[in-house]
Amino acid sequence: MLTCNKGRVQNKIETFATLGDAGHGGITRFSLSEEALQARAEFVKRMKAVGVETVTDDMANMYATLPGIEANLPRIVMASHCDSVRNGGNYDGILGVIAAMEVVETIAIEKIPHNYPITAMIWTNEEGSLYPPAMMSSGVVCGKFEKAKMLDSKSPYGKAFGEDLNKSGYVGGIANRLSSKDYIAMIELHIEQGPVLEAEKKQIGVVEGVVGMVNYRIRTYGQSDHAGTTPMPYRRDALLAAASAIKYLHAELDKLDGNLVYTTGEIICHPCVHTVIPDFVDFSLDARHQNPEVIKQVVEIIKNMPKAFDKCEVKYQEAWARNTIKFNKELVGFVQKSADAYGYTNKRMYSGAGHDAQYAADMVPTTMIFVPSKDGHSHCEQEFTSVEECLRGINVVLQTVLEIDKK
Amino acid sequence: MLTCNKGRVQNKIETFATLGDAGHGGITRFSLSEEALQARAEFVKRMKAVGVETVTDDMANMYATLPGIEANLPRIVMASHCDSVRNGGNYDGILGVIAAMEVVETIAIEKIPHNYPITAMIWTNEEGSLYPPAMMSSGVVCGKFEKAKMLDSKSPYGKAFGEDLNKSGYVGGIANRLSSKDYIAMIELHIEQGPVLEAEKKQIGVVEGVVGMVNYRIRTYGQSDHAGTTPMPYRRDALLAAASAIKYLHAELDKLDGNLVYTTGEIICHPCVHTVIPDFVDFSLDARHQNPEVIKQVVEIIKNMPKAFDKCEVKYQEAWARNTIKFNKELVGFVQKSADAYGYTNKRMYSGAGHDAQYAADMVPTTMIFVPSKDGHSHCEQEFTSVEECLRGINVVLQTVLEIDKK
Repeated sequence: MLTCNKGRVQNKIETFATLGDAGHGGITRFSLSEEALQARAEFVKRMKAVGVETVTDDMANMYATLPGIEANLPRIVMASHCDSVRNGGNYDGILGVIAAMEVVETIAIEKIPHNYPITAMIWTNEEGSLYPPAMMSSGVVCGKFEKAKMLDSKSPYGKAFGEDLNKSGYVGGIANRLSSKDYIAMIELHIEQGPVLEAEKKQIGVVEGVVGMVNYRIRTYGQSDHAGTTPMPYRRDALLAAASAIKYLHAELDKLDGNLVYTTGEIICHPCVHTVIPDFVDFSLDARHQNPEVIKQVVEIIKNMPKAFDKCEVKYQEAWARNTIKFNKELVGFVQKSADAYGYTNKRMYSGAGHDAQYAADMVPTTMIFVPSKDGHSHCEQEFTSVEECLRGINVVLQTVLEIDKK
Repeated sequence: MLTCNKGRVQNKIETFATLGDAGHGGITRFSLSEEALQARAEFVKRMKAVGVETVTDDMANMYATLPGIEANLPRIVMASHCDSVRNGGNYDGILGVIAAMEVVETIAIEKIPHNYPITAMIWTNEEGSLYPPAMMSSGVVCGKFEKAKMLDSKSPYGKAFGEDLNKSGYVGGIANRLSSKDYIAMIELHIEQGPVLEAEKKQIGVVEGVVGMVNYRIRTYGQSDHAGTTPMPYRRDALLAAASAIKYLHAELDKLDGNLVYTTGEIICHPCVHTVIPDFVDFSLDARHQNPEVIKQVVEIIKNMPKAFDKCEVKYQEAWARNTIKFNKELVGFVQKSADAYGYTNKRMYSGAGHDAQYAADMVPTTMIFVPSKDGHSHCEQEFTSVEECLRGINVVLQTVLEIDKK
């Protein structure tokens, strides 16, 4: 069965790992930084080498399109991002770009006949590492964010995103944007960023969507008093109350569907002095599940929490929420079929993390493919997926593109 | 029965409240600050007005001594401090100084015969607000701290305590220090800084000592992973483990003697990002009780804690400990007798907070007297004790001094 080229894939992984190399196994490659511009130039050069020109849109998103047999047909696009978090790894985002290039190269070099134009694409500023929010440009193109606000987004050093964008040399026409008129499908290959595929010994994740989530802030209100002079019965200890609330929420949330994930990652204690009883504790609760009914159950549990723990009032507030995104069923089916055709073990799953594909899905039929992450690590330099694992994912992208093309 | 003068007491409370007035009911009067030097000058002036000269020792501790009938007898000293925390109240420390002045004034004005010289004293830098540690000068005089290290203690602004000391104009001879040779008793009147006297409707706290304490740091070790991509069974959440450990410690410590107080006032969560499972949480445990056996039981509970909660290893480390200080039984008896003589309701108790008296107790027979704190508040601007309540405490100081003098 037709496969992409392992040596070429390895060469791409190794080359991009040098562009922003942080010196100890990972990269720091903020969007539109000098290192990211090097990565963009490498993309342009490699596409040009197989006769494909690159154009950009007004958000500097990049599109390298291999023409199809028939003129004026809409395109099939493979897209991800080439920017990273600080001290990130060599796979998050860039693997999807490497896959897009490799598929275009394979089809071009092997002269595989195809009806539709096939596009390799890079989204600008997916991580939002320097300029928030994450998924900035897919958000603008897909109508989630106002462009003017995004151009004004400031880095921690006070510079606006628009400045870097104008200086980048990659600003093109708004007409080049991804659109429902000009594109019939979008595919994103990504590392799983979690431990499930590895643990279950599956080679491919057939991604059905991106889970919906709610994020709450929960606060307990006590009374600050002297740790040495206040007998226990007189106390209203906001941290004890927070510990009780966290334990209560775990006990209740554990009764819901086993695919629910929920996390208290942040806790702020006031005044946070070892000799003072805390008067105020604030903690986060992030909960995600593909089924909106389960998210509703989470919210019910929060709303029906006791009004007080350990004599301390408890209040909650929704910080934000996003709905579950379901990918296009036909495309998901093509991914499944392609993985099966190669004999790759696979698993249907939802993405717990956000991706550009979730915004694109509102505009163009979209799907994603996951490959395993060693020990589930991501957004860190330990991030690792072997070349063999990457190649399997890229092959599935190739076959999925060809399946779509056959429609 | 002989009492001090309510009008004079009120005048002193009001006058000292202007020296460092923070503008909303409380004071900020760091040791040796301009405001503290004004308070010292006020002390000197008021003592001079009744014919009593003030001398200082090498740590700028101040001593105003009213001679007794017999020459060359050792002294009875009443002491506290005139410095405060930032945005502190008008009673912590300064009430003991006001009491010392008022008793000297009463004895001088009323020409009450007494054998022993009677000294009103101010300890330098009890709070350690600008220059740590707390109880710095009683610590130096009583051999707890090395003087050279204290002179080198730096404020958060980088200045050394020794600089402020030299500039203060209050440095005197080392021979003037409180000593076991020159002093037969030390008494400190203080606000309770807790809610017990008010809640139990007692006017006077007969303080038997200062509770011993241990302070531990407890740490839980988990694994940082993505909040969206890591199923619950794969997680090692250090914050969940910390909540479990805090709840476990409360359950176990609540089984010990009811006078035990213990507090987790500080918690540090890493990396403290709402989308990341915490890999490291560190929290404090402060525990205090007058009986060393109970403190031992606390330490046993910490040492016998499960080695892990929620799959996260737990480690602990003693940060520091101090032994219970028992005040001189005869002096405690004199306080009790004096309070009873006035018909003041009273209660035997231990101090949960640290005081200069606990260091002095190692050198000179020492005791303390408490008056109620409204709502138990202290180290804040809401700190309040009525003039009537203050006067009762001062009367008990007066009678206790006269009891000692009769020996």
